[in-house]
Amino acid sequence: MRVLGIDPGSRVTGFGIIDLAGQAHSYVASGCIKTPPGATLPERVKALLDGIAQVVDTYRPQLAAVEIVFVNVNPQSTLMLGQARGAVLAALVSAGLPIAEYTALQVKQAVVGNGHADKDQVSHMVQRLLRLSGTPQSDAADALAVALAHAQHSGGIAGRLQQHGLSIRRGRLS
Amino acid sequence: MRVLGIDPGSRVTGFGIIDLAGQAHSYVASGCIKTPPGATLPERVKALLDGIAQVVDTYRPQLAAVEIVFVNVNPQSTLMLGQARGAVLAALVSAGLPIAEYTALQVKQAVVGNGHADKDQVSHMVQRLLRLSGTPQSDAADALAVALAHAQHSGGIAGRLQQHGLSIRRGRLS
Repeated sequence: MRVLGIDPGSRVTGFGIIDLAGQAHSYVASGCIKTPPGATLPERVKALLDGIAQVVDTYRPQLAAVEIVFVNVNPQSTLMLGQARGAVLAALVSAGLPIAEYTALQVKQAVVGNGHADKDQVSHMVQRLLRLSGTPQSDAADALAVALAHAQHSGGIAGRLQQHGLSIRRGRLS
Repeated sequence: MRVLGIDPGSRVTGFGIIDLAGQAHSYVASGCIKTPPGATLPERVKALLDGIAQVVDTYRPQLAAVEIVFVNVNPQSTLMLGQARGAVLAALVSAGLPIAEYTALQVKQAVVGNGHADKDQVSHMVQRLLRLSGTPQSDAADALAVALAHAQHSGGIAGRLQQHGLSIRRGRLS
């Protein structure tokens, strides 16, 4: 199962792709879609649609996991972020991908084990869990974290047992 | 020139189509795209994409005019409305339509002549300007008003003169 994680933003949208096989996961790709500064909203929506379509065409993910965005202190920023996220969801729906949604709290809890972890801790754990040689860019790291959160949540019984330090071998708990 | 006016909403998105020929405009169609209550956000985004694609396929507009939405008192509602509007813009961009954006103030100013007109006044003037036999549904009326606002703004010199009670005949002002 190939998962596309997305961290939507009005200026920069991070993406991260991982492959899941049972409990194992491996890094495939990550990066950012930037919308041109000074562009109109329709132009930015187009940049997001084109960027996501290109990522989907190149890497052929089977599912998308998208971070549920925050309400910002600035209502106008909240509106802009909402519009960017709506465009991202539209691009994924158009590509026919099933979509899972996770809050920042769920993502941090899954990756760091602490829902209130800071950005550096998330980035550090993403690098460790995916055995990356360097630190990924902040928005790309967040997107990879969303994909990893999906990996944990979709682990089913085996995943849940593993969270409690248990596993199934030859039909028995061990 | 056929214009598709849109009033985006998180539950109901109104659409209204008018034909423009010089200073004349005529009603083509209007209605609402409703998103299923209780549906997930990706499901609602899909309903919006499918609804707009169907309207575009059926009526073949050449331009879309979309209302710039308000910041709501409730930040969570602002976020939801933003996401709906982002999906609407994505659907229009995907359809290859040029997009013009108008604030509610501009729309009301154009249709009623008062930026602070209430919904009933807008609905009444839409019915009058488009010579409709009945009152259109509220969201459809708002969408038709957005299309009419574009008609006025795109009228160029002739449109601006007309706003001042002037017109050009045989190359002279009259």
